[in-house]
Amino acid sequence: MAVYTEVSDEELIAFVAGYGIGEVTSCKGIAEGVENSNYLLTTETGAFILTLYEKRVNPDDLPFFLGLMGHLAAKGIPCPTPLKDASGQMLGSLCGRHAAIISFLEGMWPRRIMPDHCAGVGEAMARMHLAGADFEIKRPNALSVESWRNLLQASGDRADEVKPGLANYLSDELDQLETGWPEDNVHLPYGVIHADLFPDNIFFRRGQLSGLIDFYFACNDVFAYDIAICLNAWCFESDGSFNVTKARRMLTSYRKVRDFSDAELAALPLLARGAAMRFLLTRLYDWLNTPKEALVTPKNPLEYLEKLKFHQGVNGPDAYGLE
Amino acid sequence: MAVYTEVSDEELIAFVAGYGIGEVTSCKGIAEGVENSNYLLTTETGAFILTLYEKRVNPDDLPFFLGLMGHLAAKGIPCPTPLKDASGQMLGSLCGRHAAIISFLEGMWPRRIMPDHCAGVGEAMARMHLAGADFEIKRPNALSVESWRNLLQASGDRADEVKPGLANYLSDELDQLETGWPEDNVHLPYGVIHADLFPDNIFFRRGQLSGLIDFYFACNDVFAYDIAICLNAWCFESDGSFNVTKARRMLTSYRKVRDFSDAELAALPLLARGAAMRFLLTRLYDWLNTPKEALVTPKNPLEYLEKLKFHQGVNGPDAYGLE
Repeated sequence: MAVYTEVSDEELIAFVAGYGIGEVTSCKGIAEGVENSNYLLTTETGAFILTLYEKRVNPDDLPFFLGLMGHLAAKGIPCPTPLKDASGQMLGSLCGRHAAIISFLEGMWPRRIMPDHCAGVGEAMARMHLAGADFEIKRPNALSVESWRNLLQASGDRADEVKPGLANYLSDELDQLETGWPEDNVHLPYGVIHADLFPDNIFFRRGQLSGLIDFYFACNDVFAYDIAICLNAWCFESDGSFNVTKARRMLTSYRKVRDFSDAELAALPLLARGAAMRFLLTRLYDWLNTPKEALVTPKNPLEYLEKLKFHQGVNGPDAYGLE
Repeated sequence: MAVYTEVSDEELIAFVAGYGIGEVTSCKGIAEGVENSNYLLTTETGAFILTLYEKRVNPDDLPFFLGLMGHLAAKGIPCPTPLKDASGQMLGSLCGRHAAIISFLEGMWPRRIMPDHCAGVGEAMARMHLAGADFEIKRPNALSVESWRNLLQASGDRADEVKPGLANYLSDELDQLETGWPEDNVHLPYGVIHADLFPDNIFFRRGQLSGLIDFYFACNDVFAYDIAICLNAWCFESDGSFNVTKARRMLTSYRKVRDFSDAELAALPLLARGAAMRFLLTRLYDWLNTPKEALVTPKNPLEYLEKLKFHQGVNGPDAYGLE
């Protein structure tokens, strides 16, 4: 949620001229995305998003992210499409940064989650998983189980400042996740996942899903891990309770597009614990390392501790509303 | 440059329904304005700005600000027009805050100021001064000479942290400004002024001025004080030098629309010192009171000390390019 780079009108006009989308009529920095600078750009031909990639994004990953959006959009997934400039390139340069112009998606992300939203998410996620099958660039999941021990150690004993005993608790849970995490030979269905399908990354209009955005954590991993992230992100109420109706709607809508294997269903509780751990650890680090006076309020990591504990008590997929 | 209030989709849709501008298609927080929360709202009928008034704006002033924009826009000044809802009101309520929907203006503010920009500013400012003549609500200038002593005392001796001797220097200058400031009986032409016509509040398109925005410092004061603010804001180079060509273009364009009286010309150097003092004092206060870790970087007050010193050395309006 930030704009980091100030783009001059002259540089902008020269940059946009390469895309054949008419003359710039306005350009405003928007409070969307935390990793990059985003602008709502309007030209004589319509509205677009201009993204400047700041330091937190590895430039080597940009062909994967932009290529994936273009690939999925071409297959009918409602996601931003990177525009190509006159020389056919999606990635340009502006103000000393890598930059891209992508299509503008209508809709708003839902602040109050209803079961219908969860059904829409399930269906769109399954379609996205299938549509990514023939995307050729690969990107490993840099925030999967192998990375969590280092993340926990980066917070260290200071985890106990957030809740006494938290450091040991997380270390014990991590032991179990590292031991139990599905090996490659389990053959869980695998492909391109979004890995950050939180409510603020999904737009709806008139109750219908109208867009998936922010593919800057997308990677190759098991599909069920994407589902596990969404169970955490969409199916808990603000009082911490798990809404099994929302989960059932999400999962049944998903399986109408791509059905689950038995191994996936069996793995879901552990994957959901892992997904809770992943967001708990990054939030914990941000919580401990954001200056108190900063304008960006870090998210409370303990929300994810409650979610983790819920999944620890789950014995099988029926807890998520499946038979 | 901030978005403070999160607006839910449901509240937004209900609010916008009262304005007869079609259904909401998107709404994004934009990095524009420091006092309020601003959103770029698009509906089936076009683009608008949605503003939520935060605590720093006095609600009693809102009828003046919104009424003035409507008044000026109706007279052909390119400024935002507040929309009226079904009951004829410009001021509504959203998320517990006063809120308004105003028209969207095309264009971008110039990052590199050219003499042509200054000519456009002069002409538009003069037209705005004339167009405000029959606006009936009054609002005194809360940031004029009477307020500066308190502002200086709010920074106190800490001014010397910015530059040794600054507190005494400003106090001495303030003595002179308080003594020499034009009394009402001098009869300088008087009316509605913008009082904050900085480059980021003026849009251009294809080199033509396309919009004046951010009327939240507008008030009743002498016209020449508005001009004095613009001389400070538009006519100095980044190395601190005064560009007399820019000033000449601004002032000659202005006087083609509304000519200056002799008293105005004579008062201009002192008013320019006062305008430099006003921005120096608010920047000084913000500089000393913004936490070091805050994401918003305060503007350097010493830029305005250099401008103040320039105007102290001016003997008459010829220094601003006038005969």
